[in-house]
Amino acid sequence: MTASPDTSDHPVIGLDEVVHQRVRLGILAIGHEARRVEFGYLRDQLDLTAGNLSKHLSVLEAAGLIDIEKGYEGKRGRTWVTLTPAGDAALAAEISRLKVLIARVEEKT
Amino acid sequence: MTASPDTSDHPVIGLDEVVHQRVRLGILAIGHEARRVEFGYLRDQLDLTAGNLSKHLSVLEAAGLIDIEKGYEGKRGRTWVTLTPAGDAALAAEISRLKVLIARVEEKT
Repeated sequence: MTASPDTSDHPVIGLDEVVHQRVRLGILAIGHEARRVEFGYLRDQLDLTAGNLSKHLSVLEAAGLIDIEKGYEGKRGRTWVTLTPAGDAALAAEISRLKVLIARVEEKT
Repeated sequence: MTASPDTSDHPVIGLDEVVHQRVRLGILAIGHEARRVEFGYLRDQLDLTAGNLSKHLSVLEAAGLIDIEKGYEGKRGRTWVTLTPAGDAALAAEISRLKVLIARVEEKT
């Protein structure tokens, strides 16, 4: 028997791939926690190569969700990442959609 | 000031891209709800083209997370999708990791 599931718009439809993608979601979540987070820390926390992290940071920067700041700590070059207000809002929207999805899945478990 | 965020393994590291990807997560969630769901219903619910849906179904089938069954309803060919036990387990693991991520983000909001 094929049950007729819930027919309202499915929560995944509203998910933004720029935000939902696993690594980018991690960058936004860590950026939300730390407010200003250093490239090396992100790379280690998310277990990425520098190249892979840079690729995802470019996608988020192009979407206006993060600001990237280059500078020095002593003689060493550093890169810091900060969420923009749009980044905070995008993360909040992702979280609220995921909560709708989770509630729906758990309702039928 | 750069806060030093939580240093335990970040929840996104454990997310499985096969499951976490937006469309595939929707397929697994709907399959979990309906137990046995018809191709056309999935296509409409997730607002996809048949080709795009087929591509994602192949990824999930190859990973052993769904079974695909072809048959007829009257004279019309039909395709049904059912989650395998591994599919149910993968969805449950995704949901529990997302809940850890959400709790962590909301803790700092």
